[in-house]
Amino acid sequence: MTDLLITSASNPRLKQLISLRRRRIRDAERLTLVEGYDELRLALDAGLRPHTLFHCPELTDGSAAAAELVEAVRSRGVETVRLSRPAFEKVAYREGADGFLAVAPAVEDRLDALQLPANPLVLLTEAVEKPGNLGAMLRTADAVGVDAVIAADPVTDWGNPNVVRGSKGTVFSVPVASASTTEALDRLRALGVRVVATTPDTDTLHTSYDWTGPVAIAVGTEKYGLTDELLARADARVRIPMVGRANSLNVATSAAVVLYEAMRQRTR
Amino acid sequence: MTDLLITSASNPRLKQLISLRRRRIRDAERLTLVEGYDELRLALDAGLRPHTLFHCPELTDGSAAAAELVEAVRSRGVETVRLSRPAFEKVAYREGADGFLAVAPAVEDRLDALQLPANPLVLLTEAVEKPGNLGAMLRTADAVGVDAVIAADPVTDWGNPNVVRGSKGTVFSVPVASASTTEALDRLRALGVRVVATTPDTDTLHTSYDWTGPVAIAVGTEKYGLTDELLARADARVRIPMVGRANSLNVATSAAVVLYEAMRQRTR
Repeated sequence: MTDLLITSASNPRLKQLISLRRRRIRDAERLTLVEGYDELRLALDAGLRPHTLFHCPELTDGSAAAAELVEAVRSRGVETVRLSRPAFEKVAYREGADGFLAVAPAVEDRLDALQLPANPLVLLTEAVEKPGNLGAMLRTADAVGVDAVIAADPVTDWGNPNVVRGSKGTVFSVPVASASTTEALDRLRALGVRVVATTPDTDTLHTSYDWTGPVAIAVGTEKYGLTDELLARADARVRIPMVGRANSLNVATSAAVVLYEAMRQRTR
Repeated sequence: MTDLLITSASNPRLKQLISLRRRRIRDAERLTLVEGYDELRLALDAGLRPHTLFHCPELTDGSAAAAELVEAVRSRGVETVRLSRPAFEKVAYREGADGFLAVAPAVEDRLDALQLPANPLVLLTEAVEKPGNLGAMLRTADAVGVDAVIAADPVTDWGNPNVVRGSKGTVFSVPVASASTTEALDRLRALGVRVVATTPDTDTLHTSYDWTGPVAIAVGTEKYGLTDELLARADARVRIPMVGRANSLNVATSAAVVLYEAMRQRTR
């Protein structure tokens, strides 16, 4: 099978690719971009089937691993398009482009499509703004083996290139959902999952809480924390001890600290 | 006392300020930049005495807290310079500038100046590249109350604006030092501090290790981990359990997870 080859940076397919950097276009077309060898490798391992793979042999430097990845994608019947270096650099959105960019179906994130096993561990992120933070939390959720990450009142979308990148592709392997705070809490309650709010306004340390059983850890924005609705409806509150001057942790750091304490207790 | 007022964006003092974004200039002049109300507030609380405060009333929006901060700095005999909005926006390095930028003495980071209390908890970061990661680790170190953060073979400097920003100003309150890996290990050994390497190449989980007593937690770069020298000379190795597909955590996340486990054990 021979690749389609695009050398002109003004080719209309490249323009379409660039338009996918905008959320409105991604939402309308139900598409996602995956850039980078590592991210793509992980996404494929997680079962992702891209529509098209754009690759640039001048950038992949003729490595065997790169050629293998192109072959693996092609053998699944996925269209592969070779780009000249100027053409690839026009569509790459990150610095240090490594010659791989795929267009794939949007991440399935409907709450009613989410399946949870018995005794689930869930991460509930409310209104988190920075795609990098959401990506970092997915990476940690993958490492801890959480059963789902639910974005309540999300500001960013799962297909945001910086979420995909920050997650190292785990956005395609960790089950995710998006919903309003009300819907997310209703659903978790219906499933018998306790919601535990992380907030400074409690005396219960995260290490004193019993994390066994079906539970969702809720984290809010760095600036404002969790909403009144979430705090009011949560089944419990925990705080992470802080002895320093700044008295705040990055939201992805907070999530990791609590998730790893939950993991410690659940695997004893 | 009346402020010096600069309205011209081509004023030579502004050029000098911009030149301080470069590490070579900061190193030569032994100076640091602190931008932002929160960061400056924290730095002042930590005892920092700036040389000059540049502020922009048009950006601080006439808030009482902003006026108080200017007054507090001025009352310590620090020079304060008012900038017009165009002038301030030229020197601000971050988006959403809030009208505060100070020039301060460089952070003291000589290893031989570092004082450790009895039974210290130390974070040893080896060759960490991203200033944002180093900043995030300082913020966590502050929250956990570590006694020092030592950068071994550092790639970035403590005065990097993104370190200061990511640390939320805690770079001025947490004791820090920079040294080669060899020097850092020699010093820790001389002080009777065990060095524990975080690495995937061990069966010991970070939660099974006894973190009481004088100890330093060593974390390496995301890409290559710790160097052979550090791994060879470390007193012990621990790994953070990971059950997912990506099999890696962000270095700042790894540090936070281990530091909080150490804190849990040390405060029981």
